[in-house]
Amino acid sequence: MLSESISTRAEQIKQFHVMSVMSRAKALESEGRDIIHMEVGEPDFSSPEPVIEAAKDFLSQGNVHYTEAKGLLALRQKIVSFYQLQYSVDINEEQVFITPGASGALSVALAIVLDKSDEVLIADPSYPCNSNLINLYGGQVKAVDVGAKDAFQLSAALIEQAWGDNTKGVMIASPSNPTGTMITRPNMAEIVEAIANENGFLISDEIYHGLVYGEPAVSALEYSKHAYVINSFSKYFGMTGWRLGWLIVPENAIEAATKLMQNLFIAAPTHSQYAALAAFKKETLVVLEQRREEFNVRRDTLYNGLKELGFIIPNKPEGAFYIYADCSKFSSDSYQFSLDLLEQAGVAVTPGIDFGKNQASRYIRFAYTTSLEKIEEGLRRIKTFIA
Amino acid sequence: MLSESISTRAEQIKQFHVMSVMSRAKALESEGRDIIHMEVGEPDFSSPEPVIEAAKDFLSQGNVHYTEAKGLLALRQKIVSFYQLQYSVDINEEQVFITPGASGALSVALAIVLDKSDEVLIADPSYPCNSNLINLYGGQVKAVDVGAKDAFQLSAALIEQAWGDNTKGVMIASPSNPTGTMITRPNMAEIVEAIANENGFLISDEIYHGLVYGEPAVSALEYSKHAYVINSFSKYFGMTGWRLGWLIVPENAIEAATKLMQNLFIAAPTHSQYAALAAFKKETLVVLEQRREEFNVRRDTLYNGLKELGFIIPNKPEGAFYIYADCSKFSSDSYQFSLDLLEQAGVAVTPGIDFGKNQASRYIRFAYTTSLEKIEEGLRRIKTFIA
Repeated sequence: MLSESISTRAEQIKQFHVMSVMSRAKALESEGRDIIHMEVGEPDFSSPEPVIEAAKDFLSQGNVHYTEAKGLLALRQKIVSFYQLQYSVDINEEQVFITPGASGALSVALAIVLDKSDEVLIADPSYPCNSNLINLYGGQVKAVDVGAKDAFQLSAALIEQAWGDNTKGVMIASPSNPTGTMITRPNMAEIVEAIANENGFLISDEIYHGLVYGEPAVSALEYSKHAYVINSFSKYFGMTGWRLGWLIVPENAIEAATKLMQNLFIAAPTHSQYAALAAFKKETLVVLEQRREEFNVRRDTLYNGLKELGFIIPNKPEGAFYIYADCSKFSSDSYQFSLDLLEQAGVAVTPGIDFGKNQASRYIRFAYTTSLEKIEEGLRRIKTFIA
Repeated sequence: MLSESISTRAEQIKQFHVMSVMSRAKALESEGRDIIHMEVGEPDFSSPEPVIEAAKDFLSQGNVHYTEAKGLLALRQKIVSFYQLQYSVDINEEQVFITPGASGALSVALAIVLDKSDEVLIADPSYPCNSNLINLYGGQVKAVDVGAKDAFQLSAALIEQAWGDNTKGVMIASPSNPTGTMITRPNMAEIVEAIANENGFLISDEIYHGLVYGEPAVSALEYSKHAYVINSFSKYFGMTGWRLGWLIVPENAIEAATKLMQNLFIAAPTHSQYAALAAFKKETLVVLEQRREEFNVRRDTLYNGLKELGFIIPNKPEGAFYIYADCSKFSSDSYQFSLDLLEQAGVAVTPGIDFGKNQASRYIRFAYTTSLEKIEEGLRRIKTFIA
């Protein structure tokens, strides 16, 4: 018989606990129950009209062939302008790679920087796929506990303290999933300096940039032209299903990134790339800014509502669309709490255990990717549930 | 300073030599030269009309959100029916994963089967990205020289002979890129048996199925339900730029494949998936069959023309859109020959060195992904060039 064995690396990936929440939510809905979804890490808005129209115009020509591996030059040029405008950073178009989602960007970045068993520092809690991909590419994750004191972000001090003999670099994410907290400008400067002192690499996950409600987010590129920066059309630009992101690599990594794009993906989806040309249009940005304001209102409503109910939220989230709330007043097991909340109150959330081990059983993640009405209804239901 | 180092795995990937051919072709074209492109591994036809229309209809609804990680159920069900119809093979929809191109499918398959340093047997010559991905995922490629005697395919005897202590499995591709040759039905049975005797894994690259000009291609699934099968909407279905393929995994690997899809890709592009629902429509298949007939005519013209000019083609290709031709009568260095052919005759081809080491300097690959007129003009130019 052919082999039935599964690799260690595949076995080691843990199934996300939120999958159980989601499948139970689906079952309840099929029984007629109304469920408020605050577990979903995807904007509820549809793709902006100009993006849709650009895609349809392109498709009407029928010519959906491969683009070059690094993506459409016109789109890379728009991204170059975007970095000048947004961050006053000069990059050249050859450093920009259009990727199949931010996931694709992370694959390319990791394959460039990681040799077997290289260790990468990463905050706990953080987005679990990042750690899983590091393991998949043969690296080792060193999870660094972060807390309220550091706004749930890595700091220069934490990095210096955690750096070991096998540590080769750091991955940061600001705004963070699950906490929505951000790395401040001075902290980014210090982080880059601390890593540079060790001659390590830095991968900066900036996929929630744009979705911020106070100060603009700082890019790692503002402090080093040797950082790897990952971004996406999914979140701020509202283009999740199009599977399109980008990666900015240092000049010395352009050749490696080109080869990796060719081999791993051939290229990102062509129709998505043509659609994304419309993402930076003024009329699109007007819509996106309205949506950002809507997210801001939702955030405030949910944040104030949860605090009032007794959830502890040490740092008011400044970006993304998540609130990471300590529910220890109501339960010592946040996973069980999330299951009960679904079963008894019809509110779906993501348990902390999906984001790491650091006090995970105290926390649940709320996503405000649903309407203000639903969020208010969710708060009412939670109030009844914990009463 | 942040690290500038590039991983060994990225350094080890060789740049494709055809890239130099293509960039020189572009330069010549910008000087006004007319170039016949027979280096391109992509159908020249546009995507079928019903596929385009399905995409536009879907986009008009504006709702381009993620699908579940394994892809649209409706599309997976169509693929299940396709296997029943085409191969009389029963698979269930949970075994089918819709992937970002066949490249994505191969990434998932390799991450499931490969542990560090596991060795994989693969034919030389073969599609270079397959070997590169094996290396990227930490495996070792054992290239097995194949020749005219075996129609440039692995056989049970070659597999038994090459199997070593670290060998864990085999990757086959039929029809083959670059040779267009196929594994016969009896040979497939023997190959599966030989690998099963070693309890190895089998990954079968079937992306050129459908594009065959004699007997239909045999799927590895006809001989084992434990094979991993990779297929694509790019070639027969003419949907390259849509980046959509599929992977069929054994039942015991469903959970691993689901986790890998979630972590590596989130999901395949949503609009491409809705478009692909129209790929199996009768009206689409009518068009695709006409195109197959057109490829068949091109193949015969190019094959006869090249033979007449003195190229040696030991096995008439039966599938894909490639002819792998021995040009040793004209040159002892096929890479130089391809550069000269471009420079002096304006015909672009891919040198054998891109497909391995086995007699690579004797061979060049012609792709008949251009019109019959261009192919005939190409033959005239080559005739003059070698005269």
